[in-house]
Amino acid sequence: MSTYSVIGTRPIRHDGADKVTGRALYGADLQLAGLLHGAILRSPHAHARIIKIDTSKAAALPGVRAVVTADDLPDSGDRMVDLGEGETPLSFIRGNVLAKGKVLYRGHAVAGVAAVSAHVAEQAANLIQVEYEVLPCVLTAPSAMADGATLLHDNLMMKELGQNTGKPSNVSEHFRHLMGDPAAGFAQADVVVERVFDTATVHQGYIEPHNATALWNNDGRVQIWCSTQGSFVVRDATACVLDVPVSQVKVTPMEIGGGFGGKIPVYLEPVAALLSKKSGRPVKLLMSRRDVFEATGPTPGSHIRVKLGATKEGKLVAGEAYLAYEAGAYPGAMVGPGAMCVFAAYDIPNIVIDGYDVVVNKPSTAAYRAPGATNAAFATESVVDEIAEKLGVDPLELRLRNAAKEGTRRADGPKYPRVGCIEVLEAMKNSDHYKSPLTGPNQGRGVAIGFWFNVGLPSACTIAVNADGTVTLVEGSTDIGGTRTSIAMQAAEVLGLPAEKVQPTVVDTDSVGFTAVTGGSRTTFATGMAAHDAAQDVVRQMKERALKFWKMDAATPVEFAKGVFTAGDKSITWNELCTKQARTGGPVVGRASVNPRGVGGSFAGAIADVEVDPETGKVTVLRFTSVQDAGKAIHPSYVEGQMQGGSVQGIGWGLNEEYYMSPDGTMMNSSLLDYRMPTALDLPMIETIIVEVPNPGHPFGVRGVGEANIVPPPGALANAIYHAVGVRMNSLPMKPSAVMEAIWSK
Amino acid sequence: MSTYSVIGTRPIRHDGADKVTGRALYGADLQLAGLLHGAILRSPHAHARIIKIDTSKAAALPGVRAVVTADDLPDSGDRMVDLGEGETPLSFIRGNVLAKGKVLYRGHAVAGVAAVSAHVAEQAANLIQVEYEVLPCVLTAPSAMADGATLLHDNLMMKELGQNTGKPSNVSEHFRHLMGDPAAGFAQADVVVERVFDTATVHQGYIEPHNATALWNNDGRVQIWCSTQGSFVVRDATACVLDVPVSQVKVTPMEIGGGFGGKIPVYLEPVAALLSKKSGRPVKLLMSRRDVFEATGPTPGSHIRVKLGATKEGKLVAGEAYLAYEAGAYPGAMVGPGAMCVFAAYDIPNIVIDGYDVVVNKPSTAAYRAPGATNAAFATESVVDEIAEKLGVDPLELRLRNAAKEGTRRADGPKYPRVGCIEVLEAMKNSDHYKSPLTGPNQGRGVAIGFWFNVGLPSACTIAVNADGTVTLVEGSTDIGGTRTSIAMQAAEVLGLPAEKVQPTVVDTDSVGFTAVTGGSRTTFATGMAAHDAAQDVVRQMKERALKFWKMDAATPVEFAKGVFTAGDKSITWNELCTKQARTGGPVVGRASVNPRGVGGSFAGAIADVEVDPETGKVTVLRFTSVQDAGKAIHPSYVEGQMQGGSVQGIGWGLNEEYYMSPDGTMMNSSLLDYRMPTALDLPMIETIIVEVPNPGHPFGVRGVGEANIVPPPGALANAIYHAVGVRMNSLPMKPSAVMEAIWSK
Repeated sequence: MSTYSVIGTRPIRHDGADKVTGRALYGADLQLAGLLHGAILRSPHAHARIIKIDTSKAAALPGVRAVVTADDLPDSGDRMVDLGEGETPLSFIRGNVLAKGKVLYRGHAVAGVAAVSAHVAEQAANLIQVEYEVLPCVLTAPSAMADGATLLHDNLMMKELGQNTGKPSNVSEHFRHLMGDPAAGFAQADVVVERVFDTATVHQGYIEPHNATALWNNDGRVQIWCSTQGSFVVRDATACVLDVPVSQVKVTPMEIGGGFGGKIPVYLEPVAALLSKKSGRPVKLLMSRRDVFEATGPTPGSHIRVKLGATKEGKLVAGEAYLAYEAGAYPGAMVGPGAMCVFAAYDIPNIVIDGYDVVVNKPSTAAYRAPGATNAAFATESVVDEIAEKLGVDPLELRLRNAAKEGTRRADGPKYPRVGCIEVLEAMKNSDHYKSPLTGPNQGRGVAIGFWFNVGLPSACTIAVNADGTVTLVEGSTDIGGTRTSIAMQAAEVLGLPAEKVQPTVVDTDSVGFTAVTGGSRTTFATGMAAHDAAQDVVRQMKERALKFWKMDAATPVEFAKGVFTAGDKSITWNELCTKQARTGGPVVGRASVNPRGVGGSFAGAIADVEVDPETGKVTVLRFTSVQDAGKAIHPSYVEGQMQGGSVQGIGWGLNEEYYMSPDGTMMNSSLLDYRMPTALDLPMIETIIVEVPNPGHPFGVRGVGEANIVPPPGALANAIYHAVGVRMNSLPMKPSAVMEAIWSK
Repeated sequence: MSTYSVIGTRPIRHDGADKVTGRALYGADLQLAGLLHGAILRSPHAHARIIKIDTSKAAALPGVRAVVTADDLPDSGDRMVDLGEGETPLSFIRGNVLAKGKVLYRGHAVAGVAAVSAHVAEQAANLIQVEYEVLPCVLTAPSAMADGATLLHDNLMMKELGQNTGKPSNVSEHFRHLMGDPAAGFAQADVVVERVFDTATVHQGYIEPHNATALWNNDGRVQIWCSTQGSFVVRDATACVLDVPVSQVKVTPMEIGGGFGGKIPVYLEPVAALLSKKSGRPVKLLMSRRDVFEATGPTPGSHIRVKLGATKEGKLVAGEAYLAYEAGAYPGAMVGPGAMCVFAAYDIPNIVIDGYDVVVNKPSTAAYRAPGATNAAFATESVVDEIAEKLGVDPLELRLRNAAKEGTRRADGPKYPRVGCIEVLEAMKNSDHYKSPLTGPNQGRGVAIGFWFNVGLPSACTIAVNADGTVTLVEGSTDIGGTRTSIAMQAAEVLGLPAEKVQPTVVDTDSVGFTAVTGGSRTTFATGMAAHDAAQDVVRQMKERALKFWKMDAATPVEFAKGVFTAGDKSITWNELCTKQARTGGPVVGRASVNPRGVGGSFAGAIADVEVDPETGKVTVLRFTSVQDAGKAIHPSYVEGQMQGGSVQGIGWGLNEEYYMSPDGTMMNSSLLDYRMPTALDLPMIETIIVEVPNPGHPFGVRGVGEANIVPPPGALANAIYHAVGVRMNSLPMKPSAVMEAIWSK
């Protein structure tokens, strides 16, 4: 029996009507008076030195109002900046916005043009003459790490176990997590399995391409309207790239058509701002799908080796992992979380993990739903399955014997608080799916589990009380997956109101306190906590107002329950007290800000049934169940939606998606026709089982649910394929041709 | 020596760049996708019964998407509502939006049309066939009060001294303020002067006509974008007219091109909303200048009798006033303040004031800068001047002998706290202007003084702290005269920041706590107080953060002065502490709401030198000085601007402006060419003297300054004309023809 009135119900989302009727405004819909349209000239080479850029013909074209190149950006020198992911050379951030000296991937932005129409802008961009010295390119981590490989950066010195080696390298960093005594651990093992895996570069594949409109005003203020996961991230990054104070930049987040981590970096915003400064007019830049593929951050391709040892009783005693992740053109951040997650689901006493961040001539990588973890789990879950087979143990049973739990230490340091790994595995085991037999030839079932640690970060909310008993909620978290509602519901629960009586608004960066990115599965958790706290601030004030209204001593205790304030023999309903605000001191406004520490990580499991066509290698997903610990599901429909969405993306990553690269670094499938994402026709309904192991670090027990669900699918599918046709796939995607090759080599 | 760093300085206004470059967005600039354009059909008669409205031809015109009449509004029955000015029949509010049963003034809205273009909408409006039974009209208070006068409303029963008489009447109310024993007072008087005055209907004359765009969304929410002095007023009034909960209406205030009280009522908003509901599309309605004159609230014309008695020592001992104010088509609210202000500048022991609110066949009146007070002061100041002349006393000296001061009781009840009437009169007396002699024939000097009580009402603000040491300020007060800056400055003073480091934003009704109208000279006072309090909330939290950062006990006292937090031997600057927000608990957000009681009324005086052309009656203003008690001038330039603006409007009202009506109730001069407002060419530079008698009810001593300055000019001009050519003008405007008639009859 739930003690909640709102939490756990499924109200209609506040932005639903606008979205289904097409009224919601996205960045491309924005039309400002005097708007100019921009175009970006992009590199045709994956790696080349820029000898000369001649923009004179473009600038002379009638209708052109401004042309910019990297020379229009301030000089970065050796300046280091921290935009929330540790210190980075400013030259790298600016270099990815507009290439300086070299182009490092095909699609790298070289120049921007603003003109009276998009067509004139495009024509002008093509009139910009760039003289290149083409250089050899490196496209995968192993090739970039090879002796004598072309170096992307002269000034990138490899960091080795925390020390700067002073040696120029494509490896920006090698780090190691060590726990226990791995050699001794493997010595105790009765079974040891070691395998090597490769995963392809894949893209987040959001429907809405990047867009940005900027107005650099006469008073020095820069206004930006864009599609982003974090308005304050855009504000801070744009300010940093343009070298203006953050408060001079105001970002209005438009509606967002998907992000999945890929709409965190800035690409167009600073260029649009520079073009606006030069032209004195607002400038809009839009990406095409090809631009999105070629010039925005995909998730890293990777080269991974995992070795696990188990006793014959089925206890994992040692683990070893080698993770070399492609960073793209500039040092990346994805191998870190990959290393945190590679063995995160297991209680293994002896572990060594080596991580390598490797720059390659592909677009700079960005976050993608549990970034780095899916690659790693594909490897680990494949090896665990093989060990279970060798030991003759049910694969879920083996995982249960070794499951991470409260007190388990991860190799990268942290000890788990209360987590739901065992509960997820048990829910998988008890599911109708797992109990149902397969029925045909070439069918197989695979299971896998995955982890994502989630993040906290700052959020702020304010709540104002209306005279009609409703409240308005102001927040800074861009709403990608229904968070207006999941956040409003938490305020509603505290205030004793139905969800629809809380009206949430996502506002610009001038109108709310700093709120970090919608990412890291943090929004319902952290901004929800801010809404909860702001609602408590409201209740506290409303209690004071009740005493004022009753002319009672301010120290009298007041109860608030089921919409009624009570003190002694006095009582007044929420609705009635709302009408007394003016005469008891003015409007009631609550506020709260948080930077929470009690982030609850989430475990997710997947059960996949597949049928493999032995003649074509095509893998058909027959049945798929996603199981995830939500801590407490605020709005179960949206939790299920996250689980289904993450599962589908994991299935696409597992079976089909990849950057198909020519040797010269050209992506050959840069359209949604050729880049094969699963559609509804390719998939069964994704079944979901929500597990609720409350997170003690959140007032309602919330764990973020946006990411862990993408982690297990590729591993589960690989294991299912093995059980269907007896081949262990060690490379993603497990596309028909790869499956056929594996079958043939068996 | 000021103890303030920001208060009293003159920073550039935050919205300056946008306004001077034309980037600021006004309602007419708004373009929404799928926008329809509307037109209003207005009554050609001042008084008529509506027999029948046939909209069929209009609805059938190609391109027309919706037609609405009063029948589309819910039935009002006998429902009474309170929109902040006491209980009013809902039928009156709705009736002024769309006429039901009768039209009560020429220009009264009868029907609305929405179509694909403004031209089609206009054409369609003209196709609506309305059958009228024309009725006799009454155009002034005395004629409407006469026995047998046509009644505007069957259901308007006269209220007599608080009692409903049950008698249908054009007089909605007769009230009386009585203090002391007037008959006994007049018996003590050595000099008694009694005069009768008439003042014409005048309009606020803001540059920007009314406009409204509405979208009645599929989910039931109504969005409004409009030009208004109060977004929450529009929200509440529109919700009331449409019979939807206030929280279903969201109002976004666009920039506003003047209001002066006239942009408080709703005219177009509910009609645009109804048209949007019927058409399913956003609908924009714009008024022409003629619509503004004919269909929005002017200030009341009035018929006034004032009698004052003084001893030969120059002590006013008794006052009697009869005020009959035109309400326009529906009961009005302006005679109340007129009666409050008629003797408000004087300490008179025996007073009787009778007020009459009278409906007439003119547009429903609205507030206009100190509404009601200018009419009344014209009368009183003329009589006081005559008494001074009879007693042979300098007119300022006579006023000083009788000036209201702390402890003076007004006839309507309140006793003054600390007020600045004496200080204003002394500043007038000591001014260079008053000391400079006149130099030519037919020149004269007049003085007058006036009062406005100002209002408080609720306001809310939030302030968020940026990492770069700046703050953002969210407010709900629409900015008509620079209040973004005058409010931001008060936050800046508390935070130890320069004004430009506080970035103010005026947001929609969903994004800030309830904030009452920008009117009643309340905004810099009340919203400024909210900003002050919100800034104090920020400082309090920043002190906690400093202790957290220093890891010191939370109870340790922290000092904040000159941008530095200090506790014991620790200190940290504001700017540095701003960078520590995330690690000390997240973003700092302050909030405050107020409904202040310590409103400080403001006195203003005027000195006018005129020259009268004895051949044409034209009055030329040679020199004009406005003196006003600002309490504390937050931004002296904007205080001066208010004083100059109010003076110019008072001069226009005094010398030229009037609704010139034909006997059938048609305004004959409904354009800015024929309705003669003063231009820069008609006026000398208005000199200003700011007096500062701090208001103890505000942390910085602010008194609102938006209104009192309009009160004295007509009286000062009348007295100046008398001293120039020896005629006492008892009617406004004192236009050339009226002055000539007065000269001839002398």
